[in-house]
Amino acid sequence: MTSPATRPFAHPIRVYWEDTDAGGIVYYANYLKYFERARTEWLRNLGIEQQTLREHTGAMFVVSESTLKCHLPARLDDRLDVTVDLRHSARASLVLHQQALRRGELLADGEVRIACVDAPTLRLRRIPEDILELLA
Amino acid sequence: MTSPATRPFAHPIRVYWEDTDAGGIVYYANYLKYFERARTEWLRNLGIEQQTLREHTGAMFVVSESTLKCHLPARLDDRLDVTVDLRHSARASLVLHQQALRRGELLADGEVRIACVDAPTLRLRRIPEDILELLA
Amino acid sequence: MTSPATRPFAHPIRVYWEDTDAGGIVYYANYLKYFERARTEWLRNLGIEQQTLREHTGAMFVVSESTLKCHLPARLDDRLDVTVDLRHSARASLVLHQQALRRGELLADGEVRIACVDAPTLRLRRIPEDILELLA
Amino acid sequence: MTSPATRPFAHPIRVYWEDTDAGGIVYYANYLKYFERARTEWLRNLGIEQQTLREHTGAMFVVSESTLKCHLPARLDDRLDVTVDLRHSARASLVLHQQALRRGELLADGEVRIACVDAPTLRLRRIPEDILELLA
Repeated sequence: MTSPATRPFAHPIRVYWEDTDAGGIVYYANYLKYFERARTEWLRNLGIEQQTLREHTGAMFVVSESTLKCHLPARLDDRLDVTVDLRHSARASLVLHQQALRRGELLADGEVRIACVDAPTLRLRRIPEDILELLA
Repeated sequence: MTSPATRPFAHPIRVYWEDTDAGGIVYYANYLKYFERARTEWLRNLGIEQQTLREHTGAMFVVSESTLKCHLPARLDDRLDVTVDLRHSARASLVLHQQALRRGELLADGEVRIACVDAPTLRLRRIPEDILELLA
Repeated sequence: MTSPATRPFAHPIRVYWEDTDAGGIVYYANYLKYFERARTEWLRNLGIEQQTLREHTGAMFVVSESTLKCHLPARLDDRLDVTVDLRHSARASLVLHQQALRRGELLADGEVRIACVDAPTLRLRRIPEDILELLA
Repeated sequence: MTSPATRPFAHPIRVYWEDTDAGGIVYYANYLKYFERARTEWLRNLGIEQQTLREHTGAMFVVSESTLKCHLPARLDDRLDVTVDLRHSARASLVLHQQALRRGELLADGEVRIACVDAPTLRLRRIPEDILELLA
């Protein structure tokens, strides 16, 4: 999807009926779904499958904070590129900047903090060492 | 919501932006969400909380079959009544007829079969006896 | 729902299966849906129906910015109160602070800027005068 | 996605967090979203963009009936193939059979009737002639 040297990572997303609302545009909360799909593919691209991660380590990523700015509306049939740019990584959380673009034009962007928790208890825990190394 | 003697059970639902699509009407798959909310309240009205049921018995209801007919469109701000009418109960599944009405006018209806499964394995199991008695 | 004198406005919301994810908790983007339902009821409580507003004036509210912090997870069957507190009103936009509470405990909160646009063109426009008066 | 000679058409879909529920599996109503994404790509593959169709002819497809059978659960990170097989075409509606498969294993299937309506009035109308020819 992205040539190896380029950053940030980008994931293509198509706008379907389910994504739109009666205003004729993409319902704003759905950008957070798009951002999550792109983060999932960014992790997968690094070799991290979240279902496998949970089964093997008990670790799960949850969103603890997010911001979203909607600049221009997206519409049915639009083809978007949703980017993932790691801004900061700490022991138990990551901060990512994400954008939704349509042919290079910025439609929406935001910052998302994902925290690593223990799946059964939902308590904060260290991000597994091998993931931190992959992100470094 | 319904007087004790009346059938079927009805649950009020308001149409919000999230429910609509760019056609200006309620996105059809969302009727299945409405039906599920009404079933959940119907069960709660019988004294059955699904989270508690699962913690105490390991049993969980899943939808195994559904049909849906859309007769007239619902729109933003509409106030709907969604009904639940138990049509058939077997050892491991229930069949319900559900309607979405707007001031008595039928907008959509369908039949839903919910099956009782063991939560960890998702294998079919008998519906707990006390639930079958409540439904009888 | 709220006694006339109390602020902020609060709207009750029940957590259904549709709202949860495989982490066993409410999917974070769904708090933005909850916030919007509460805003819609807050407007309705002031006498403003958005479908009617659009038909009569061509004006429509869209979300231009939002922040969200998730403090504690909500689960299936939880009964939440979602608040709306107007923080700032300008000519073409409003800023609201919103909280999701469970028996008084803060689960999530955020700030939402809603902008007034002309429905067909989606261009910014003044909020209709009578709405600004209702909010004052 | 499919070689030109093969039928039915298939569209790949990945299961994300947004698609799952607290049962740990894909929420059943989301199969209807998957089916719609596949239908949209099937139409696009035939040269039909629905946004363009509406702007040029005023015609819009809406779902009037659907059935869904869930055979086996799908989970986070699963990669599905969702098929579209035209079963019947009439003057104002099409009937399609759709399946969700995981490595050839049938997880869910159903039949969907889509009706052609006039976008502003939502009244039934003939499917545009060139679309019927493309489908023949």
